[in-house]
Amino acid sequence: MDQYGYVFVDLMGTFAFGISGALAGRERRLDPFGVLVVTYATACGGGIVRDLCLGSLPPVGMGDWRYLACVVLAAAVTLWMYPTLDRIRNPVVWFDSLGLGLFAVVGAQKSMQLTNNIEVALVLGVIAAVGGGVLRDVLLNRVPVILEKEIYALAALAGAAIQVFGQWAGWSAVLTPWIAVLTCFVIRSLALRYSWSLPRTW
Amino acid sequence: MDQYGYVFVDLMGTFAFGISGALAGRERRLDPFGVLVVTYATACGGGIVRDLCLGSLPPVGMGDWRYLACVVLAAAVTLWMYPTLDRIRNPVVWFDSLGLGLFAVVGAQKSMQLTNNIEVALVLGVIAAVGGGVLRDVLLNRVPVILEKEIYALAALAGAAIQVFGQWAGWSAVLTPWIAVLTCFVIRSLALRYSWSLPRTW
Amino acid sequence: MDQYGYVFVDLMGTFAFGISGALAGRERRLDPFGVLVVTYATACGGGIVRDLCLGSLPPVGMGDWRYLACVVLAAAVTLWMYPTLDRIRNPVVWFDSLGLGLFAVVGAQKSMQLTNNIEVALVLGVIAAVGGGVLRDVLLNRVPVILEKEIYALAALAGAAIQVFGQWAGWSAVLTPWIAVLTCFVIRSLALRYSWSLPRTW
Repeated sequence: MDQYGYVFVDLMGTFAFGISGALAGRERRLDPFGVLVVTYATACGGGIVRDLCLGSLPPVGMGDWRYLACVVLAAAVTLWMYPTLDRIRNPVVWFDSLGLGLFAVVGAQKSMQLTNNIEVALVLGVIAAVGGGVLRDVLLNRVPVILEKEIYALAALAGAAIQVFGQWAGWSAVLTPWIAVLTCFVIRSLALRYSWSLPRTW
Repeated sequence: MDQYGYVFVDLMGTFAFGISGALAGRERRLDPFGVLVVTYATACGGGIVRDLCLGSLPPVGMGDWRYLACVVLAAAVTLWMYPTLDRIRNPVVWFDSLGLGLFAVVGAQKSMQLTNNIEVALVLGVIAAVGGGVLRDVLLNRVPVILEKEIYALAALAGAAIQVFGQWAGWSAVLTPWIAVLTCFVIRSLALRYSWSLPRTW
Repeated sequence: MDQYGYVFVDLMGTFAFGISGALAGRERRLDPFGVLVVTYATACGGGIVRDLCLGSLPPVGMGDWRYLACVVLAAAVTLWMYPTLDRIRNPVVWFDSLGLGLFAVVGAQKSMQLTNNIEVALVLGVIAAVGGGVLRDVLLNRVPVILEKEIYALAALAGAAIQVFGQWAGWSAVLTPWIAVLTCFVIRSLALRYSWSLPRTW
């Protein structure tokens, strides 16, 4: 997968997180522009922090019109299809899980490309993945999803780790990102479905 | 308006947001230094995020003594005149609205100057304008003002858009920023006064 | 104290703040990886903001394995020794106070070294010192410790100021940082012990 492929994955993540942000804003009955602001923060927050830490300025969520278009589209689709989406149980959470995987992979890939440092790639993969959701929840004054019992940041780390390992081991550049995204999404979804948590003694 | 003019507008915004931050801290009965911290976060938070995204380091809110002087002055004036200010209805909100317009305009102008990218200028204009208030409300564990019903971020976008359009269309460099500031302030103030909200079906 | 000495102080601060973050996460009964995330945010959050503002990329909390090792160690030690630590009254607060002093000093020193600007050094010393704790409390949806009555950010400012003044006045490079750390820690601890607050008329 070349440069354009990762931009496509990044845009998909932006759209998926955008839907989750727009739904969360709509559920709080914000006005349309308020919904757009929360959509933008959720969709672009993680990528902005990632780009700031990589010194890749201005952050893509600001200077690239395609990201802004994804944000506007996600907000518009959500507001238009809200009655349908509302019937799905916990739709915010499903789109959030998808965005988690997509952003973990792009965050890890972009960090590897710019710093060639495995630690930076793992940490920034997780931060890019969880950043937008944390910002959404902080803006909406909710308990951040990252604190939920069900495996969350660990799923993002799994996705980032597979991407980094695949690049290092020379796996197929076309398949690796999708395996990584799928792994993250499946872990998070199963954790939600069966209320998985890490073992603990407390 | 030359470079110095925008610095002056930026300092005015710092002072106005500083007053709003100091009032919010005082209302929560923080001690004097706690008030100063919230004043600084409110007054310089948006500008620091703006400068980080533009790669203009160190952020002006840190390296330029005039910004720190504005912060100290705003905190001192607020604590000294608190009995008077407290009699005004919702003084936090009025100074917040003024800061909103001033920062939207300076954020848009500085972003245009450094990146010559209209999207960056619009997005960073809004972020610079709303950032300090969000930080203030997050620190004080309040519901962020950006979630309020009355038009908020949209007013900032209007101010940023007028500034960007005016620069592009070659309007008077002296008048444009003030028209933009005034537009933002008037929109936000009218929205507050008459409880305007965007139309919505929910 | 040479470059390596300050890295050592920075790692100590990372460990101390890490313990405070891990304890806070454990008290909230997060799962082990959730505890690790809060530990990382608390231990590295302030340093990441500091490095972003200094343009020192990637931030040390991401690219340097020793910081990540400190974070993992702090989380592991905390979870393992929790029954013991829990018997100490307010252990989060004690480790938080120690981290406050260590980070104020390193933040001030690194800022002076990279910008040679006293204002930047004072502001970034305080931000580096309080940033991790604020991030911890925002993530855990608690009232930020910076808002507590007992002198907090002012203690960090005292530590940063002693370090900056000592560097300017040519004090011993070995002793100055420890005097600064100790001053900050003692001020904060006494303030906690005797419920000191700044004088105020409200």
